[in-house]
Amino acid sequence: MQEKKNIMDYDTVALDQEGNAVIIIDQTLLPGRVELIALRTAQEIWDAIYLLKVRGAPAIGVAAAMGIYVLAKNIETEDFEEFYREFCRYKEYLDSARPTAVNLSWALKRMEQAALQAGRAEKKTVPQVKEVLREEALRIRGEDIEVCRKIGEYGLTLVKPGDGILTHCNAGQLATVKYGTATAPIYLGQERGYDFKVYADETRPLLQGARLTAFELYSSGVDVTLICDNMSASVMARGLVQAVFVGCDRVAANGDAANKIGTSVVAAVAKYYGVPVYVCAPTSTIDMETATGDQICIEQRPAHEVTDMWYKEPMAPEGVKVYNPAFDVTNHELIAGIVTEHGVARAPYTESLKNIMSQRIQG
Amino acid sequence: MQEKKNIMDYDTVALDQEGNAVIIIDQTLLPGRVELIALRTAQEIWDAIYLLKVRGAPAIGVAAAMGIYVLAKNIETEDFEEFYREFCRYKEYLDSARPTAVNLSWALKRMEQAALQAGRAEKKTVPQVKEVLREEALRIRGEDIEVCRKIGEYGLTLVKPGDGILTHCNAGQLATVKYGTATAPIYLGQERGYDFKVYADETRPLLQGARLTAFELYSSGVDVTLICDNMSASVMARGLVQAVFVGCDRVAANGDAANKIGTSVVAAVAKYYGVPVYVCAPTSTIDMETATGDQICIEQRPAHEVTDMWYKEPMAPEGVKVYNPAFDVTNHELIAGIVTEHGVARAPYTESLKNIMSQRIQG
Repeated sequence: MQEKKNIMDYDTVALDQEGNAVIIIDQTLLPGRVELIALRTAQEIWDAIYLLKVRGAPAIGVAAAMGIYVLAKNIETEDFEEFYREFCRYKEYLDSARPTAVNLSWALKRMEQAALQAGRAEKKTVPQVKEVLREEALRIRGEDIEVCRKIGEYGLTLVKPGDGILTHCNAGQLATVKYGTATAPIYLGQERGYDFKVYADETRPLLQGARLTAFELYSSGVDVTLICDNMSASVMARGLVQAVFVGCDRVAANGDAANKIGTSVVAAVAKYYGVPVYVCAPTSTIDMETATGDQICIEQRPAHEVTDMWYKEPMAPEGVKVYNPAFDVTNHELIAGIVTEHGVARAPYTESLKNIMSQRIQG
Repeated sequence: MQEKKNIMDYDTVALDQEGNAVIIIDQTLLPGRVELIALRTAQEIWDAIYLLKVRGAPAIGVAAAMGIYVLAKNIETEDFEEFYREFCRYKEYLDSARPTAVNLSWALKRMEQAALQAGRAEKKTVPQVKEVLREEALRIRGEDIEVCRKIGEYGLTLVKPGDGILTHCNAGQLATVKYGTATAPIYLGQERGYDFKVYADETRPLLQGARLTAFELYSSGVDVTLICDNMSASVMARGLVQAVFVGCDRVAANGDAANKIGTSVVAAVAKYYGVPVYVCAPTSTIDMETATGDQICIEQRPAHEVTDMWYKEPMAPEGVKVYNPAFDVTNHELIAGIVTEHGVARAPYTESLKNIMSQRIQG
C-alpha cells in the first residue's frame, strides 16, 4: 500500500481510524521493502500471523486483539448471544494461526472476557459491547507501549551517553508496538541525545538481527553496525561495547533466561571481557512456576534453515546432520540485571524477581 | 573432470604420474560438486590460486611448488642460465596470484634455491635440475603431510574415544594436502575407531565450516553435526563437547593465537563451560618475532560478504555499517595447549614455545 523509508513513523501494529482494519508493517518484505498492509477479513488476519508478516509475541497479541475487534464490529446482529457465538468462532480461528504463541491466546481470551463482562454481566447492547472491545484492544496496545517505555527508562539508567551497546536477535520495535524491549533504552537514549553506538548480531540462522534489528535501528537514524554472531569477542576485545541488552522469551524464578539461540554465547563472551549483560523482560515473560532454566523446553527447528534457506544454492553437504535449536538458556550468573517495567532485578534473582512480581500484582 | 563422493580418496593437491599437471579439488564448487581439475599452464595455475580453487596456506604452497615444477619441466633449453631466467619469470608470475600468502612465496623461493643449488652450484644438467625440482616439490608435499600427521598424533593424546570435538572454520584436509591441522586428530582417530562426535561451526561470513569442514568430514564418514556459530554454548551446556580443536594463522611468542574470526568467541564460551581449547599450529605459523597478539594486524573485509554474498537478495538494510574482520586473536589464557609437530606446548607459552622452536631447528 504505502512505502516509506523510516519505519519509526509507524506503529508495528495499529488500528485504522475508522476501526475497519489492522494496519501492520509486512515483516516478510524486510529489509528490502517497507510496506504497510491493511488486514480486514479473518483470513487476512490469520494469514498475517501464520506467515509471520507480524511477529514477536507482544506484536502478535496486539494484532490479534485489534483483529478480533475489526471482525466483531462487522457481526450483524442486535442479540448478544448470537454475537458472542460468532465472536467465539472468529476467536478460535485466529487462535489457530500460531498455537504456541502465548500472547496470541492471552490477548484473545482477554478480549473474550471483556465482551462477556459487557454483554452478559453488564447487559450492554451489542453496539456498546463493540465499543468496549475497541477500547480493550487499544488498552492492550497502550499497555504494551507503556511496558516497553518503562523498560527503556530503567535500561537507560544502566548506561551512559556514548556507550557501545550490543544486542542479539530482534527484541525491537518490530516485535512490539513501539520501542521494543532490548531496543527501548536505545530509542529513548536517541530521543535524549545519548549517541549510542549499537552493534547488532546478525543472529543466524533466521537473521533477525540483520533483517530486522539493523534495519529498524538504521531506518531510525541510530548509529548501528551489523556484525556476524562470531564477532562479539572482537568488538568487546577492542573495548567498543559497554553493555549488552537482549530480550527474552521466558525467565525462570532463579533468573535463568531463555532467549534466541546465541544469547548465551554473547553472555559467556561478555563475562570474559567484563561487559554487563542485561535481559529486558516484561513481567509477562517472568515465569515463577519454572524454577530453573533446565526446565525450559527448547524447540528444535529444521535443518534447511541452516543449510539452504536464503541461499542461491545449498551451503552444506546434502544429508549432513544439523543441530538447530531455536533458543538457548543463559545461566543467571551471566546476567548483570533483569530489566522489567517495575525496575531492574539484581542477583540473587530468586528474591528480586519475587519482589518485582509482587509489585506487578499490586500495580 | 572426475566426480566422486568421497574426497578423502584424493589429495587436495597432487602431481599427476607423468609430472605434466597439478591435480586439485576445485574448492569453489564445494559442497555442491567434487571435481578434480588438472592445471597445466601458468595461467591455469595462477587462476586456481587467485580464484581460491585451491586455498589454505599449506595447500597453496604445495600447489605452487608442484606448479612451478610442471612449468619448468617444459622449458626447452639445455642451458641452465637460460632455463633459470625462464624459471624466474614463472616464479614471479605465480607469486603474484596471492601476494599476502606467506606459504606461496616461501614454497617458490625454496624451489628456486633447489634449482640454483643443482644447476649453478652443483653444475647439474638441465634435465637433472628438473628432476631435482620434482623431488623438491614432492618433498614439500611430503613434509606437509608429515607435519599434519604428527599434529594429529599429539592431538589424539588429548582426547579419548567417544569424545565430542568442536571445530571452527576449515583447518582441514582441504587446507593442506592430507589430514589438515585441527582435523588431523579427528581423521587419525577415525582410522583407529575413536568414534568422535564432531561439531562444525558454520563460520560466517564465508561459511568455510559448512562448505568445507562439514563437507570433508561428512564425505569421510566422520560423525559430524553442523551448527551455527552462535550454538556453541548450547552444545557445550548439554555436555556434548569435551575438546575444541582449531587451526591458526599466526601464534605470537606469548601463545596468543590469530585465527579465523569467531575463534575467540568459541574460546571464551569453552572457558565458561570448562572445555579445553587446543590450537593446532605447525611450527611454521609460530612467530617468535611477534611478542603478543596485540601486534598482529587484522585484515578488514568488505561489507557485502556479510550482507549480500550467497543470498538470493540482500539480508540487511542497504548502506548499513558492517564490521567484518577476517581474524581475531585468542588470548593465550583461553588456550589449554598449542599442538605442533614437535609436541604440545602448555602455559607458560613464552617458555614452552621457545623449547618447541629449538626442537624445530635441531630436528
